[in-house]
Amino acid sequence: MPRFIKKTSQKVGLPPGTLIHVGEKRTDKITISLMDYDEKQFQEKPIEDAEEAFPLKDEPTVTWINISGIPEVDLMEKIGKHFEIHSLTLEDILNTAQRPKMEDFDHYVYLVMKMLCLDKEQDAVHSEQVSLVLGPNFLISFQEQPGDVFDSIRERIRKSKGRIRKTGCDYLTYALMDSLVDKYFVILEHFGEKMEVLEEDLLDNPTREILESIHNMKREMIFLRKRVWPLREVIGSLTRGGSSLVRESTAVYLRDVYDHTIQVIDTIESFRDVLAGMLDIYLSTVSNKMNEVMKVLTIIATIFIPLTFLAGIYGMNFKYMPELEWRWGYFAVWSVMIAIFVMLLFYFRRKKWI
Amino acid sequence: MPRFIKKTSQKVGLPPGTLIHVGEKRTDKITISLMDYDEKQFQEKPIEDAEEAFPLKDEPTVTWINISGIPEVDLMEKIGKHFEIHSLTLEDILNTAQRPKMEDFDHYVYLVMKMLCLDKEQDAVHSEQVSLVLGPNFLISFQEQPGDVFDSIRERIRKSKGRIRKTGCDYLTYALMDSLVDKYFVILEHFGEKMEVLEEDLLDNPTREILESIHNMKREMIFLRKRVWPLREVIGSLTRGGSSLVRESTAVYLRDVYDHTIQVIDTIESFRDVLAGMLDIYLSTVSNKMNEVMKVLTIIATIFIPLTFLAGIYGMNFKYMPELEWRWGYFAVWSVMIAIFVMLLFYFRRKKWI
Amino acid sequence: MPRFIKKTSQKVGLPPGTLIHVGEKRTDKITISLMDYDEKQFQEKPIEDAEEAFPLKDEPTVTWINISGIPEVDLMEKIGKHFEIHSLTLEDILNTAQRPKMEDFDHYVYLVMKMLCLDKEQDAVHSEQVSLVLGPNFLISFQEQPGDVFDSIRERIRKSKGRIRKTGCDYLTYALMDSLVDKYFVILEHFGEKMEVLEEDLLDNPTREILESIHNMKREMIFLRKRVWPLREVIGSLTRGGSSLVRESTAVYLRDVYDHTIQVIDTIESFRDVLAGMLDIYLSTVSNKMNEVMKVLTIIATIFIPLTFLAGIYGMNFKYMPELEWRWGYFAVWSVMIAIFVMLLFYFRRKKWI
Amino acid sequence: MPRFIKKTSQKVGLPPGTLIHVGEKRTDKITISLMDYDEKQFQEKPIEDAEEAFPLKDEPTVTWINISGIPEVDLMEKIGKHFEIHSLTLEDILNTAQRPKMEDFDHYVYLVMKMLCLDKEQDAVHSEQVSLVLGPNFLISFQEQPGDVFDSIRERIRKSKGRIRKTGCDYLTYALMDSLVDKYFVILEHFGEKMEVLEEDLLDNPTREILESIHNMKREMIFLRKRVWPLREVIGSLTRGGSSLVRESTAVYLRDVYDHTIQVIDTIESFRDVLAGMLDIYLSTVSNKMNEVMKVLTIIATIFIPLTFLAGIYGMNFKYMPELEWRWGYFAVWSVMIAIFVMLLFYFRRKKWI
Amino acid sequence: MPRFIKKTSQKVGLPPGTLIHVGEKRTDKITISLMDYDEKQFQEKPIEDAEEAFPLKDEPTVTWINISGIPEVDLMEKIGKHFEIHSLTLEDILNTAQRPKMEDFDHYVYLVMKMLCLDKEQDAVHSEQVSLVLGPNFLISFQEQPGDVFDSIRERIRKSKGRIRKTGCDYLTYALMDSLVDKYFVILEHFGEKMEVLEEDLLDNPTREILESIHNMKREMIFLRKRVWPLREVIGSLTRGGSSLVRESTAVYLRDVYDHTIQVIDTIESFRDVLAGMLDIYLSTVSNKMNEVMKVLTIIATIFIPLTFLAGIYGMNFKYMPELEWRWGYFAVWSVMIAIFVMLLFYFRRKKWI
Repeated sequence: MPRFIKKTSQKVGLPPGTLIHVGEKRTDKITISLMDYDEKQFQEKPIEDAEEAFPLKDEPTVTWINISGIPEVDLMEKIGKHFEIHSLTLEDILNTAQRPKMEDFDHYVYLVMKMLCLDKEQDAVHSEQVSLVLGPNFLISFQEQPGDVFDSIRERIRKSKGRIRKTGCDYLTYALMDSLVDKYFVILEHFGEKMEVLEEDLLDNPTREILESIHNMKREMIFLRKRVWPLREVIGSLTRGGSSLVRESTAVYLRDVYDHTIQVIDTIESFRDVLAGMLDIYLSTVSNKMNEVMKVLTIIATIFIPLTFLAGIYGMNFKYMPELEWRWGYFAVWSVMIAIFVMLLFYFRRKKWI
Repeated sequence: MPRFIKKTSQKVGLPPGTLIHVGEKRTDKITISLMDYDEKQFQEKPIEDAEEAFPLKDEPTVTWINISGIPEVDLMEKIGKHFEIHSLTLEDILNTAQRPKMEDFDHYVYLVMKMLCLDKEQDAVHSEQVSLVLGPNFLISFQEQPGDVFDSIRERIRKSKGRIRKTGCDYLTYALMDSLVDKYFVILEHFGEKMEVLEEDLLDNPTREILESIHNMKREMIFLRKRVWPLREVIGSLTRGGSSLVRESTAVYLRDVYDHTIQVIDTIESFRDVLAGMLDIYLSTVSNKMNEVMKVLTIIATIFIPLTFLAGIYGMNFKYMPELEWRWGYFAVWSVMIAIFVMLLFYFRRKKWI
Repeated sequence: MPRFIKKTSQKVGLPPGTLIHVGEKRTDKITISLMDYDEKQFQEKPIEDAEEAFPLKDEPTVTWINISGIPEVDLMEKIGKHFEIHSLTLEDILNTAQRPKMEDFDHYVYLVMKMLCLDKEQDAVHSEQVSLVLGPNFLISFQEQPGDVFDSIRERIRKSKGRIRKTGCDYLTYALMDSLVDKYFVILEHFGEKMEVLEEDLLDNPTREILESIHNMKREMIFLRKRVWPLREVIGSLTRGGSSLVRESTAVYLRDVYDHTIQVIDTIESFRDVLAGMLDIYLSTVSNKMNEVMKVLTIIATIFIPLTFLAGIYGMNFKYMPELEWRWGYFAVWSVMIAIFVMLLFYFRRKKWI
Repeated sequence: MPRFIKKTSQKVGLPPGTLIHVGEKRTDKITISLMDYDEKQFQEKPIEDAEEAFPLKDEPTVTWINISGIPEVDLMEKIGKHFEIHSLTLEDILNTAQRPKMEDFDHYVYLVMKMLCLDKEQDAVHSEQVSLVLGPNFLISFQEQPGDVFDSIRERIRKSKGRIRKTGCDYLTYALMDSLVDKYFVILEHFGEKMEVLEEDLLDNPTREILESIHNMKREMIFLRKRVWPLREVIGSLTRGGSSLVRESTAVYLRDVYDHTIQVIDTIESFRDVLAGMLDIYLSTVSNKMNEVMKVLTIIATIFIPLTFLAGIYGMNFKYMPELEWRWGYFAVWSVMIAIFVMLLFYFRRKKWI
Repeated sequence: MPRFIKKTSQKVGLPPGTLIHVGEKRTDKITISLMDYDEKQFQEKPIEDAEEAFPLKDEPTVTWINISGIPEVDLMEKIGKHFEIHSLTLEDILNTAQRPKMEDFDHYVYLVMKMLCLDKEQDAVHSEQVSLVLGPNFLISFQEQPGDVFDSIRERIRKSKGRIRKTGCDYLTYALMDSLVDKYFVILEHFGEKMEVLEEDLLDNPTREILESIHNMKREMIFLRKRVWPLREVIGSLTRGGSSLVRESTAVYLRDVYDHTIQVIDTIESFRDVLAGMLDIYLSTVSNKMNEVMKVLTIIATIFIPLTFLAGIYGMNFKYMPELEWRWGYFAVWSVMIAIFVMLLFYFRRKKWI
């Protein structure tokens, strides 16, 4: 599986609006669920065929169609035709290698976001694309895989908790966006905890594995940042009245998501700074260890090399070496050696090497 | 305790406006104090129940309600209802992991700031959130913990020092903001002094502890910067007439706080540059020491290894080694050795190694 | 062949509008092809002389003249005169060292883009300039070399696939731009795959060749970025209504190319970050290996130098050395040596060097 | 004396507008000088009491009051009252830890600038704050210390050189600003010359002192930049008609100072780049020296360690060592040793180590 | 000669508009040449006194006065008076340490540019200031030194090549600017070629000289960038209708120079990136060589130190050493030594050190 880039070359040469799925296919089955509500009434059902929901398009109630899995081309075409969705939008929905973005087509707004899931077993972050098509009184959401991320929102609709049943499609859109951004905090907390563990290990014993972990986290931060950064702009332009489909009262809530996004970006930046600092500590710890090794070598060599030389001298076999005949010669050599040894010890002590 | 990130995942999945406290709970007791004044009259009392202050809302006098500690949810709801505060604001007040920000809701302005306290014993900087809700003639301030940071302002109100009694709520808000920003200078001075001590130590004896101190201060600067940077924007937008609740005459004062904030940011940036320079000096000092160690090793080894070889030669036991029989052979070898020694010394001197 | 800069000095001192070709001449032959179509009719032919196409200029049909190879000066002049193209534009078309840009001359828009081709045999990326002159109902495209990049578009025109026959010149321009930008993804995928291979090699065995590959890829990223970055602005200004020749309905499509360009830039930036990380890993791996080498040296030297000294002592030839006479002297020395050996092993074990 | 930050915490908790002096007090005596002129008349006198100048406020002549030293609080209050200066401005004048800034209070403009003086004996740059209060026909300037920086301007007024007597207060303000910015060039030239000396030393013999000088200069550049950078904005906004007190004809001159400021910033940036380059050269020179040291060690050790081993072999005392009995054994060993020596020399030569 | 900064302090304290020459004086002689033309007529002559050209000021023909060398003060004053040039402009013309800039004085535009000349003998880039004063129908150009850079333009005027005789002063200004910017490409090509040579040398044999060349080129890039960067803004503002003296039809041509300037900046940036990459390669090559040296040392020392120890053992003179008496003791020791040698070789092979 290519890790650094998704295969997008398979579309090269096709006319725009050609509907083919780009990206990894994670599931074959698609499931469609429908919710339709206003303040007073509410219905919910899984549906087989998207067409069942079509008549609700022009009802004043809020209609939320959620499609999990990669839909077939003809389903997309039917939806596109009925809800008057531009062929480029349909194409983008199927291309799961999109960047987060917002496109305003007057009669609907198209939003691309990234859902991040933490796979705790593999210790990896998975990214999934969520596309939202917000119309005057309908919202169609596309997920790559069925999942439970929107369950709490469904619960709030069913039980009419909070303002959700009293407001329109734009508030529902906000609710979905909010739940996606909330997920980012879970990921960041996971990384934060991992970094604390790493940092303690780093001070204890800097191994090569720690270095690799730091680099991996740095890279994850780069990819996370790439996914979150454009979101800021997307939500920002929605907040500043980027579309007539978003009411003033909802903009206040979107401003809240915007703040959360900024906080996510802030945290990512802080994490990057902390990781850079950890890398510096790693490098200087390794270099410190090296120094220590060199010092031991130097001390040992500097002490024993001259002494060995001295012993070598009196190992020579010259016929006339007066010292060898001396009564106390051997002990005199020992004394000289011990004196040299002590002097070198003092020298190293003064240099603060030992 | 997570150091790099506050737990915010506990809110995931809840509808917006749900009032639960996010962050570390530092105290259980909440204390509410009330000040009510205009140029002529003045009353001050600790109150048990916030509702005692409610009737003052519509009086033309300035009403300042200060709440220390994390209020209960139903207290928040009562305040929210009486002062017409948006549920998102109430939620943000309870979430102490906010970023500094300003939100203008026309009939009130919501301000989040960070109060920094220096804990000299633990040599740590604590951050606490202060929320201000500025209405036409009331100001509600929320602190995480009771503290004396606003005491000097209370004193000025009591004694009617300066302009404070002659002006409105916006000036009071300015006074609170000013006292928070003043605190930052205390923190920065503490760091500045610490850096000077560190720098002297660094030049004397660069130890691993100094390296860690430098990295810790770098990180503190990153977190400080993260807290102060958004403040610039917050105060800037208030100054540029961001809200109708801030009068022109107060904007002049806010401009003063704005200048202070810029100065704080400037100082943080300078500190970061100085710390980066200290890191460079540390690294090059360590590398210099290493060089010195290597030089000693090389000098000793380069002198004695050839000499030891020479001694080894005449330690061989060959039957026919003419030199061994020579009368002055031993002394000749010594002369050669001394000559080599002196030549090497000259060589090292010319290379500037000794 | 100069790699870092194209020869452009040959034009120094000539008046503006002087038509001479700047850059490497890749082919001598020029081929001109003509397509003329609207929704109902369609003709296509290779033509010898560009003048054959001149009468079509004022027809309401879309006329697409594609010129491959570097045209002669008098051909350029004829085209310039008939289609009222400014002499600076003609000059720019012949100068293949241009930066991507858009120039709006009211009655036509001049676009310069770079086509990138991957030469898989030489593992190199070639860059070729494509100039587009978009008029009210004609489009003249200039390629440096004949190639098949636009074949799929020709096919779409012939078979009237998609919207292409139903729309005007601006949509054709979009189609050409889109096919060029699509090519960039192919290049990036190639680099992405190469990086993955490199990364695995890096962790296995960091050689000098890998270092050079990393640096080469870094440089390719710099040159790629230089080519793509200005495109963003070019397409951006077309999208924002930079010219009256681009209809609103086409702007939607251009926004799509714009998104792709952003995605290309994003990917290049990510690749640069990843490459920087790989460089860090390379350097720390090399430094780790060095440390290991030093440790081996130190361990061996630290163990055997003192032992050799001890052996040297008892190799001395003093007449009075009591130990030599002892019965178990030799074995005692062996014991001492083994004791020293074991102690040093323990010492190194404790230091975690072995 | 704190070097990295000025004591500003002494003001914490005081109401705004409280007049206390912040910063180092350099002198106790204050001197006030007065100049009053128009095209025809001119008077100049040192005055004891600032009140002597008060009646000139509303005269149409240009009145320049220059106050050196830190004025007493009641003097400031009197001036503030008579010239209608806001209490925040008075406070800022006494706080000499300000950032360069401009504040427009409609009836006067307040300017803070930094005067830099080179203390050639201590080889240090001193910074002093200069505050200017520009009214419709008066200018009050505050210096921390008496100095002669404005003497040339006084001379121009006395002798009516140039346009100065023919123009108003705004031109006088420009003249003062210009003379302050001119001082920066003197400082930069001093640094430029110092850098050239340093650079030559660096290539000759890179010592630790040079490293410290480079780091000191880097830090001075950081602090210089901090002082000059905001000036750009200050003068820029004056030039762009930031105040009605600055006439169009003077704006041309301010544009000139603006250009000078840009040039100062440009030069500081270039100096920083040059210093960074010098640091790189220092580091690679040190690392090169290290390499040379290592090479010498390796050559000596690699040559003599095997030879010493060989000598050791024939120093063994085995009873049955055939070589020892050989007639030419000793000379054979010498030949082998010389052969090894020569081979190793060739090897090192081929590796380009010698 | 100061290299890093031009002497500008000599002007400190002088009133603005004081005409003294700042910078190195390169020539004493000044030469003035005059060209006067419109579409039909043309005259050209070297003139002694600038006053000869004065009557042409108000003629409808284009009058181009080119002054090479540093003019005397009274000549400047005469020109200034006749052509109504502001004293600050006159001052700037004489100050050859200017930054490229444009100043619009309504009745004339003042342009400062830098001409770069490559001195191939000294392998250095010289910078010379060119000032242009563009009036409604005159252009005065000031060069520091006589040179032939404008000769091709004179030739075009004489022979009425291109549009030059058919257009006004603004087009002439464009032509001069274009010829200056064209010169930059020559410089860049020279650097590009030098870099390619350097790069090949770098891979072959990284010497200290190459390091210095890289650093010198980096510095030249910094200074080049400093000279070209402001030009972008200057030409940009002329293009965007910065002055009424520049006609719409000329703006198209200026846009062309603007593109060239961007291309120059782009190339400089690329060169800086390439140089940074070369520095990285240099450093890692040096560090690789160091590693190789260390490996050789370690291999030799690790092999021979234990063997020498073994030889030392049997060189001891103990009376009772059973091995010495053994018949095959000597050969046994040799066998052990060879075994150790082979084992270590295997060990190093496995570690991939040899």
